[in-house]
Amino acid sequence: MDLLKERIKSEYKVKEGNVIKVDSFLNHQIDVELLNEMGKEFQRRFKDVEIDKIVTAETSGIAIATIVAQHFRVPMVYARKRESQNLSEDKYSTDVYSYTQNKTYKMMISKEYLKEGERVLIIDDFLANGRAISGLLDLVHEAKATLVGVGVAIEKGFQVGGQALRDEGVKLESLAIIDEIVDGELRFR
Amino acid sequence: MDLLKERIKSEYKVKEGNVIKVDSFLNHQIDVELLNEMGKEFQRRFKDVEIDKIVTAETSGIAIATIVAQHFRVPMVYARKRESQNLSEDKYSTDVYSYTQNKTYKMMISKEYLKEGERVLIIDDFLANGRAISGLLDLVHEAKATLVGVGVAIEKGFQVGGQALRDEGVKLESLAIIDEIVDGELRFR
Repeated sequence: MDLLKERIKSEYKVKEGNVIKVDSFLNHQIDVELLNEMGKEFQRRFKDVEIDKIVTAETSGIAIATIVAQHFRVPMVYARKRESQNLSEDKYSTDVYSYTQNKTYKMMISKEYLKEGERVLIIDDFLANGRAISGLLDLVHEAKATLVGVGVAIEKGFQVGGQALRDEGVKLESLAIIDEIVDGELRFR
Repeated sequence: MDLLKERIKSEYKVKEGNVIKVDSFLNHQIDVELLNEMGKEFQRRFKDVEIDKIVTAETSGIAIATIVAQHFRVPMVYARKRESQNLSEDKYSTDVYSYTQNKTYKMMISKEYLKEGERVLIIDDFLANGRAISGLLDLVHEAKATLVGVGVAIEKGFQVGGQALRDEGVKLESLAIIDEIVDGELRFR
């Protein structure tokens, strides 16, 4: 998606450990107009599948998943990442290792909001090693819901997450795939 | 806002410590159609003020603030609640005490995304003791931005946050105000 690639190119920053920052439009400040175009693009790419629910993980997936859910006119559910007083005891739960934070956290969805047979599109902002999305897949499987696809804004193509999902036969749509960071310069697929 | 009150009435749960759960449409599962109506209502209530930016706090403010930002056609910024590898060092920061979690956390916005003179509408899902919104106000003041108002989905009118903001002269708009919880039953203002 050229509009997104242009915005990444003109505004990204690279931090230690090849962490790509796009805080100006996706991860801290949210450009709702751009996200709206991304929502349209996801709808175009998943137009042949029926979708009952959008699933994402807190925190950085929420804004893009909310807008994607508007385009598909379905509810969105975000997985919670820690024990919360507000989350019902009756939940699906899985452990996820975060490379950026170097720790394992729990990812949870209440059983009330993810049901057997529901057709789920997973949406997230970034796909790198794929641990967060694998966690969401675990929850979808635990619920006996049906995964129809995964859509991410930015895939780091030089990390293993994207290829692993494609090898599993998952319909993965990434709006921008970064294949290399050379001397701080991004190369897109 | 009657549509919201009806949804609260038919789907709320009360947890220990008068914590009101509306996980089915606002805090875990997101009903984007309802949030869209709420966005329209905020736009109606703040139609006489100029707004440059919507500001909220992670996590539960993000979905509603994203949709409100669409209605005002301005960017949204969400304050972060912990030190993050991805957040620039150059930030506004304040300490916020959370009653529900019984701990103090840091709330931060990068200086890049909140500027002197910007007209800010703060949006959040809940207003109870008002600590989270006070934290956002601190950040707005620190940035020398201009607060034009505060909009919340649900105000717990039996806690002090709403009255304190009104006493300070803040234009506060709450879409639903719960004045009492009597035997688990809600009474709206």
